[in-house]
Amino acid sequence: MRAAKLILILLCTWCFATLSYADPVADPLPSWNVGPTKTSIIDFVHAVTDEASPSYVQPSDRIATFDNDGTLWVEYPMYTQFIFALQRVKELAPQHPEWKDKPPFSAIISGDKSAMEKMTMHDVEQLLAVTHSGMSVEEFQKILINWLVAAKDPHFNRLYTQLVYQPMLEVMSYLRKNNFKIYIVTGGGQDFVRAYAQPTYGVAPEEVVGSTEKTKYGYANGVPTLTKLPEVLFIDDHAGKPEAINLFIGKKPIIAFGNSDGDQQMLEWTQSNSGKATLMLLVHHDDAAREFSYGPKSKVGTFSDALMQEAVQKKWHVISMKDDWKVIFPVVSIASQDQGK
Amino acid sequence: MRAAKLILILLCTWCFATLSYADPVADPLPSWNVGPTKTSIIDFVHAVTDEASPSYVQPSDRIATFDNDGTLWVEYPMYTQFIFALQRVKELAPQHPEWKDKPPFSAIISGDKSAMEKMTMHDVEQLLAVTHSGMSVEEFQKILINWLVAAKDPHFNRLYTQLVYQPMLEVMSYLRKNNFKIYIVTGGGQDFVRAYAQPTYGVAPEEVVGSTEKTKYGYANGVPTLTKLPEVLFIDDHAGKPEAINLFIGKKPIIAFGNSDGDQQMLEWTQSNSGKATLMLLVHHDDAAREFSYGPKSKVGTFSDALMQEAVQKKWHVISMKDDWKVIFPVVSIASQDQGK
Repeated sequence: MRAAKLILILLCTWCFATLSYADPVADPLPSWNVGPTKTSIIDFVHAVTDEASPSYVQPSDRIATFDNDGTLWVEYPMYTQFIFALQRVKELAPQHPEWKDKPPFSAIISGDKSAMEKMTMHDVEQLLAVTHSGMSVEEFQKILINWLVAAKDPHFNRLYTQLVYQPMLEVMSYLRKNNFKIYIVTGGGQDFVRAYAQPTYGVAPEEVVGSTEKTKYGYANGVPTLTKLPEVLFIDDHAGKPEAINLFIGKKPIIAFGNSDGDQQMLEWTQSNSGKATLMLLVHHDDAAREFSYGPKSKVGTFSDALMQEAVQKKWHVISMKDDWKVIFPVVSIASQDQGK
Repeated sequence: MRAAKLILILLCTWCFATLSYADPVADPLPSWNVGPTKTSIIDFVHAVTDEASPSYVQPSDRIATFDNDGTLWVEYPMYTQFIFALQRVKELAPQHPEWKDKPPFSAIISGDKSAMEKMTMHDVEQLLAVTHSGMSVEEFQKILINWLVAAKDPHFNRLYTQLVYQPMLEVMSYLRKNNFKIYIVTGGGQDFVRAYAQPTYGVAPEEVVGSTEKTKYGYANGVPTLTKLPEVLFIDDHAGKPEAINLFIGKKPIIAFGNSDGDQQMLEWTQSNSGKATLMLLVHHDDAAREFSYGPKSKVGTFSDALMQEAVQKKWHVISMKDDWKVIFPVVSIASQDQGK
């Protein structure tokens, strides 16, 4: 009898621990204000993970896709990857004295903002060619990591990797705990995002889908090498997003987060996941006090009136940074803020 | 004291169960004959999964890549996907009366083997265009699944999906149990392999990397649709394999299986995974009695003398189907064999 009692005690302890873990009182999204957006996320996760629910989705089909720039981290007033390219041109300039008189490099080196604002698509391609190709894939990762550990945003005086949105980190963590498979689907460079996605978001390289250049396999002193070429393979933006999701994942998402016109087709593709419950959300940058307020007229992260209309019509959720988020960025120690340039 | 004794008994029972589970007597590769190849696989898995081993690799870096045709299933005398394309042309012929007099379709419809053997690359492209594009990605999956559940190989009188190699299924299962992430990296069509990889190999769509065509996003009656285009995006063969591994996975494998010259660069790329223990293996089709014997002179699955020399020089393991494998194919019930055409 004493043995039976002991087993019962052990069992009860285990049950209690398990129940506490699943306690609904423990808020999975503490940085979100109570409201319809937060509720929609939590209700959705409950519905697709509860085996008794008619909306139950098996774990292998719980695909979540997140845009990156403006959805997971700051993109305004300039995409971080573009800032990297500009700074990289300056770093490389001493090895290229000919750039001093050659646009678009000359404008960057001299800091001629008015000339920089007039850059054409061809100019941008030239910048990307000299900063994003010609080296091995490993060398490029090293260059990026070296830059990312030190480069600071002048407006917030924070490392760029500290300008991620705390409420979105919580959503990713919450989905992960509920056996969702999380992908970043970004118009930005796949290699660029892979350089920091694992430590910053907990997203592995194979879960980052982005715009890519071609590579070329060869040998350097007999050692196999992949060299980055200045040729686009794939632009993962607008219609390119569902195309890339099909290419890389081969399944439709059930939940997708975006913030701009470039995410429209990804959200449509998610909603077309026939027979499954789906949730589509758009981060709206309406918080001039804590971040930025921009929308239809912004060149970066354009959130057009047409997208807003489609969101309303199709019952996509528009996340108000001002109203839905208690905090914007994670708390970081002064020490880590000081490690930047 | 009695309680302490009980806990000890429970603990010992648990320990015993755990030890039994890890008992080396339980053979993870029962269809492999005892020999250096089998030993190399088991020793490698032990070395990279034992935290006390200097070769320990954390689970997130345990990437395994498998070629498909000739490595996981039969490819001889003709790739299964090509057989699908030929049969599909015949199926579609009634809707295309003009094909009767138009090469290469006319040769297929009339069964003119001598004309079929003279097909050029341009002919093959035409075949792929009419059989692999023009439909939505979902429609193509349905066409493939309908074909795969019924199409039989005439030589073995088995469904093609039953012509997978039992010893390789065991390797995949063994690696999976040891927290490896398994990818198929195939020169064949990504969509084709995705149509049967999950039920046949337990490999999910997002774990199949193959040759791909472009798709185009659009709307059919307002419903988002991805249409397959007759334009190649990527050929995942030879140098394309490490390029695709970098593109899709972003990490180097630690173990790779191939069987032909098309896998050379994938194995080289795996071996170049610096600082990590790696294992490279090539299936050699040397079993004329139970499957086929072919090698340097075969157009399909060419295993050149140069590849054999490189394998010897770089200590890659050559798997002899004749000597290393007890059985070739899984045991299948007569009922399932009879479900074919």
